[in-house]
Amino acid sequence: MNKFMEFAVKEAKNSGTDVPVGAVIVINDEVIASCHNQKEELNDVSAHAEILAIKEAEKKLNNWRLDGAKMFVTLEPCPMCASAIINSRISEVYYGATDNLYGALGGVIDLRTIFNSKLVVKGGIMETECEELLKGFWRRNG
Amino acid sequence: MNKFMEFAVKEAKNSGTDVPVGAVIVINDEVIASCHNQKEELNDVSAHAEILAIKEAEKKLNNWRLDGAKMFVTLEPCPMCASAIINSRISEVYYGATDNLYGALGGVIDLRTIFNSKLVVKGGIMETECEELLKGFWRRNG
Repeated sequence: MNKFMEFAVKEAKNSGTDVPVGAVIVINDEVIASCHNQKEELNDVSAHAEILAIKEAEKKLNNWRLDGAKMFVTLEPCPMCASAIINSRISEVYYGATDNLYGALGGVIDLRTIFNSKLVVKGGIMETECEELLKGFWRRNG
Repeated sequence: MNKFMEFAVKEAKNSGTDVPVGAVIVINDEVIASCHNQKEELNDVSAHAEILAIKEAEKKLNNWRLDGAKMFVTLEPCPMCASAIINSRISEVYYGATDNLYGALGGVIDLRTIFNSKLVVKGGIMETECEELLKGFWRRNG
């Protein structure tokens, strides 16, 4: 499992002037999408790593249904991303750092309740590395 | 105010095989973006009318900050769209039909609380017409 989170951490490091977050989508043990946060770069509030990865996977599969897919993301998804993940039918989400401000898969709220979703969620994967990414960014830009 | 909701209703009618929802963004009394739900058409779970309209406006302004903008949308935004609206700094949202299943600006939850947002929200604008759009769709496709 850690190899995919390592992939996500590496992806996060491409975020440039954006808050470093990386997300990868895995189907049958293969990475089919890998994206980083590009909100500032693209001037697009929806361009969080998770949304971009979902769009990339959907395009590759020519299908918005990602049943059976796993997402590995360095930060707990916000409400926007958690909703998109649940609606895309991704089966499992593994995240690194918990988001105590905007986390929508347990950190602050759990949107699975509203959507009556069976999405499997596990946080705290490579938590220290994922938190360090964010802390380093805020030390440089805070 | 109703002329912009009428615009959104007209836009919703372009949704084809998608659930009919239309959203327009207005700045200084001018429509700068107008989109309908295209989830099925684009195979993209994020392609709700609101997200597409925000992206169109951001592209036009070359800025993700839409301070002072008003959105008119035929259905109360879901958590994905409500988060994007709040993060884009849109100032006011006027919606038609309340979403008692997934509404995230008061219908089921109110995400303004989490984001500590001052977004002005008013629902029930041309409610009957907006509800009729959805009821008609579900009668044909339910």
